[in-house]
Amino acid sequence: MASLSPNETTLFLLALGVLLAGARILGEVARRCNQPAVLGEIAAGILLGPTVLGNLAPQLSAALFPRSGGGAVALDALMTLAITLFLLVAGMEINLSSVWRQGKMALSVGIAGIVGPFAAGFAAAWWMPGLLGLEPGSDKLIFALFLGTALSISALPVIAKTLMDLNLYRSDLGMMLIAAAVFNDLVGWIVFAVILGLMGTVGAGHPDIGLTIFCVVAFALLMLTVVRWLLHRILPWIQAHTSWPGGVLGFALALALVCAAFTEWVGVHAIFGSFLAGVALGDSTHLRQRTRATITQFVSFIFAPLFFAGIGLKVDFIAHFSLLPVLLVLAIACLGKIAGCGLGARLAGLPKREAWALGLGMNARGAMEIILGLLALQYGVINERLFVALVVMALVTSLISGPAIQAVLRLRKPRRFINYLKARAFIPRLQASNREAAIRELTQVLAPLAALPPEEVAQAVLAREALMPTGIGHGVAVPHARLDNLATPLLGVGISCAGIDFDAPDGRPASLVFLLLTPREDDGAQLEILADISRTFRDKPMRDQALEACGATEFFALVRAGQEEH
Amino acid sequence: MASLSPNETTLFLLALGVLLAGARILGEVARRCNQPAVLGEIAAGILLGPTVLGNLAPQLSAALFPRSGGGAVALDALMTLAITLFLLVAGMEINLSSVWRQGKMALSVGIAGIVGPFAAGFAAAWWMPGLLGLEPGSDKLIFALFLGTALSISALPVIAKTLMDLNLYRSDLGMMLIAAAVFNDLVGWIVFAVILGLMGTVGAGHPDIGLTIFCVVAFALLMLTVVRWLLHRILPWIQAHTSWPGGVLGFALALALVCAAFTEWVGVHAIFGSFLAGVALGDSTHLRQRTRATITQFVSFIFAPLFFAGIGLKVDFIAHFSLLPVLLVLAIACLGKIAGCGLGARLAGLPKREAWALGLGMNARGAMEIILGLLALQYGVINERLFVALVVMALVTSLISGPAIQAVLRLRKPRRFINYLKARAFIPRLQASNREAAIRELTQVLAPLAALPPEEVAQAVLAREALMPTGIGHGVAVPHARLDNLATPLLGVGISCAGIDFDAPDGRPASLVFLLLTPREDDGAQLEILADISRTFRDKPMRDQALEACGATEFFALVRAGQEEH
Repeated sequence: MASLSPNETTLFLLALGVLLAGARILGEVARRCNQPAVLGEIAAGILLGPTVLGNLAPQLSAALFPRSGGGAVALDALMTLAITLFLLVAGMEINLSSVWRQGKMALSVGIAGIVGPFAAGFAAAWWMPGLLGLEPGSDKLIFALFLGTALSISALPVIAKTLMDLNLYRSDLGMMLIAAAVFNDLVGWIVFAVILGLMGTVGAGHPDIGLTIFCVVAFALLMLTVVRWLLHRILPWIQAHTSWPGGVLGFALALALVCAAFTEWVGVHAIFGSFLAGVALGDSTHLRQRTRATITQFVSFIFAPLFFAGIGLKVDFIAHFSLLPVLLVLAIACLGKIAGCGLGARLAGLPKREAWALGLGMNARGAMEIILGLLALQYGVINERLFVALVVMALVTSLISGPAIQAVLRLRKPRRFINYLKARAFIPRLQASNREAAIRELTQVLAPLAALPPEEVAQAVLAREALMPTGIGHGVAVPHARLDNLATPLLGVGISCAGIDFDAPDGRPASLVFLLLTPREDDGAQLEILADISRTFRDKPMRDQALEACGATEFFALVRAGQEEH
Repeated sequence: MASLSPNETTLFLLALGVLLAGARILGEVARRCNQPAVLGEIAAGILLGPTVLGNLAPQLSAALFPRSGGGAVALDALMTLAITLFLLVAGMEINLSSVWRQGKMALSVGIAGIVGPFAAGFAAAWWMPGLLGLEPGSDKLIFALFLGTALSISALPVIAKTLMDLNLYRSDLGMMLIAAAVFNDLVGWIVFAVILGLMGTVGAGHPDIGLTIFCVVAFALLMLTVVRWLLHRILPWIQAHTSWPGGVLGFALALALVCAAFTEWVGVHAIFGSFLAGVALGDSTHLRQRTRATITQFVSFIFAPLFFAGIGLKVDFIAHFSLLPVLLVLAIACLGKIAGCGLGARLAGLPKREAWALGLGMNARGAMEIILGLLALQYGVINERLFVALVVMALVTSLISGPAIQAVLRLRKPRRFINYLKARAFIPRLQASNREAAIRELTQVLAPLAALPPEEVAQAVLAREALMPTGIGHGVAVPHARLDNLATPLLGVGISCAGIDFDAPDGRPASLVFLLLTPREDDGAQLEILADISRTFRDKPMRDQALEACGATEFFALVRAGQEEH
């Protein structure tokens, strides 16, 4: 049986390890800068691939990520598997029912959001094929169809993440945006599958385009109706009669793989099949939250980073960077999408400000564009220059969508208390046994961190405390003050085993005492941070664990883990 | 870049899908028969591979699981990845501290459990090389060393699972058995890694055996001391400063991959590195339960089934089955292990019955033997016939260990109520508003299922109810009766929205009314099933969800999922 040599195995495992580590580290860095993780993941691939490492240490890069031989085949196969599973998860996030519930308005935004950028992309490709990088000898129609489609698919995961970050996910605007994006995704993918069929036909010589298109459309309809209905009935049976969560987990993945194999066989890429399997599966309320989380976590934190880092390995991003196509693609993509969606929303009767926010939200492009670009590159429909331009466009539109919505709607991201908590102002065992002493003890460590005189700060906090006690119940107290000479909010915390009376409404002594200092002119800071503390520790297990934290690091870990779960 | 053709991609994904589905389905069937899932998983591979499908439809089997070309390399690479991750999980299950806590006795059982079977295996291989299948021209010493080692490693996961099934996991005997198995595992693996180095040297011509052995031992010591200590300090930092659970997940996998690459490079198989990474990681109390569960679930239910099904693909199990070596290997393995461990335990002062139970428990061999056998087969140290004999030995020893311990200790597996609950005796809305009517309503549907006259059964239950009411609190009541003409326990359940008074100690009316009928001579059944019902519904969320179940299937799914979590 053909297999990897020990040397190839070593390099294969090392390549995966390095790629995963790099992608996760830079992904975290990106998140830290409030950017989508995918940005860092691709950057890791660019660093390790031909662009940077390939230029600095060509032999090392070539040994780790070979371009021929068994190692290259193994990496390629794993990337195919990774993207297939990623699309399964992307599909699972789609909630078909919500599309119907949002009805006409979402539909008109969704359609306008496809037609606008598709028309803009198609026209640009048709009139300026050379500038955008049509390969000589390629089919101009397919090239134009590809570009139109590649510009019209919004990035549902990015949109969902942006809305969650802005606390808009459950708002009317948020639900409509999601519904429009889901619709956009579905239609965009079906169109794209057809075009892929066309590309495949041109490239590899498939027998019959008509048959491919028929199979794709019939398969999609079947998956979204009959199979979806069947799954909703089969899943509870599987959960009842097999080990948990192995039964459902195995079933979901096997289904996705078989569907992927089917669409690949029909002549469209495998990812379309697993995407539809995800949509059909994810819609069922019988898929338990935990099962869903296991698949999603493993795929989003292991397979997806590997795949996106793998993109950076594909081409030399510096050598193939060319400003004109990049700017052109970016401009066409933004204009087509924002204008299309905005107009669609206005026509459907949405107020002006919200219509533009909708357009800006839908403008986020992401993983999908990159995947489509990669396929087109492999089929020889586009060249490296356009591929780089598409990747840059996807990243830039994702980056600007959050801040742009914020600006248009004049929102600010809710602040999390944990971001202002100072590790050096964490007191695992408060000595104090009364309110005043506790406040002084915390002030002693917190005030110096902002170069403020502890005594003055303590006076301000005590004066505020005298107006109205700051116990907020559940054993938590948050004495606080607004100060003049402070640039940013500052938070310390002390744990008291015996509890200190802060006159809470529920009469319980406070075991967790936060000291919160905020700049005088920053109105929202105090309220937002207070609300966040109260929300976080409303949860009893969270409080109990917090009281047992022996150090700042553990406390941070606990709170972050808890906040991620909500 | 070398990649799979669309046709190869189709077959690769289809092969994975079919293999996974087959392995999971037969794995579940095996569990249903109270056998380890690995048995069914290997059986799936045997069905799909050369043994069955290869004989029935050679072309289909060869297309799905090719033996050459890109598809074969891709499958092989994925199997390598799967086993590497499986060993990470196996390592994570090892708790080094508990080995030290059990101290001298575990140590002496552990050592005797290695020396016994090793000596038996070595001697047999040395005196009967031809019978056991030494390849002509191979090194007899390496062959004998291999067989000795392959017979001496106990299957920790099988042992842990058996103990949990028998409710012995937290008992003194259980902890000692686990500690001895952990010790056995560690030493066995280090010995095996050294022998692998020797095999590799003979097969591929590595430069220096001494260096390999030195590297392996140094690496193992480093991982179990310094790295383990470091990880314990790094993990909280990662959890505090990265997204959860992605940070730890990515870190754990990247670490395992890099360690695997290192041991592969040194000349030992990759799995040893990821196993040590797992031991070093899993020991840290800072690895949160959920993160651990995500890795474990995904690996045990996706990667492990794929790998074990892949084993069935390797050889034709019927063509290479030969009774004499199978019986010989089985006899040597059992004798060496049971006698070795039993004597070790007796010498350490354990009573006779427990000593034999310990020996029988340690006798379970499993995944490890098969993996080692596979490696030896690939290196040409053993032939297919011995490989088949090793697989059969591993499966048979695993199968008999549970029942044998039960017999020696005269135990019985605690019964779960869900296994006796009849779907046809599930009443989602009880009409009855009092005790007697409820009992009659349930008897009407339950008694016919055992061909008993409902009225007689109702009389028996009401007579029992008159002696002492059966409300057990928390809104649950379990009226019951022992009957003469009943072969097996029988359980029905009805949900009452309004609640029915069953005179519970806490005074609450019962919303969940179980009707339990047990055979008169079966003493334990009633108590065990009652205890299990009470334990299951002590949990409030469980009760609340149970009350909302609209059908038997949903109710079953809920209870099974809940029981798995505990």
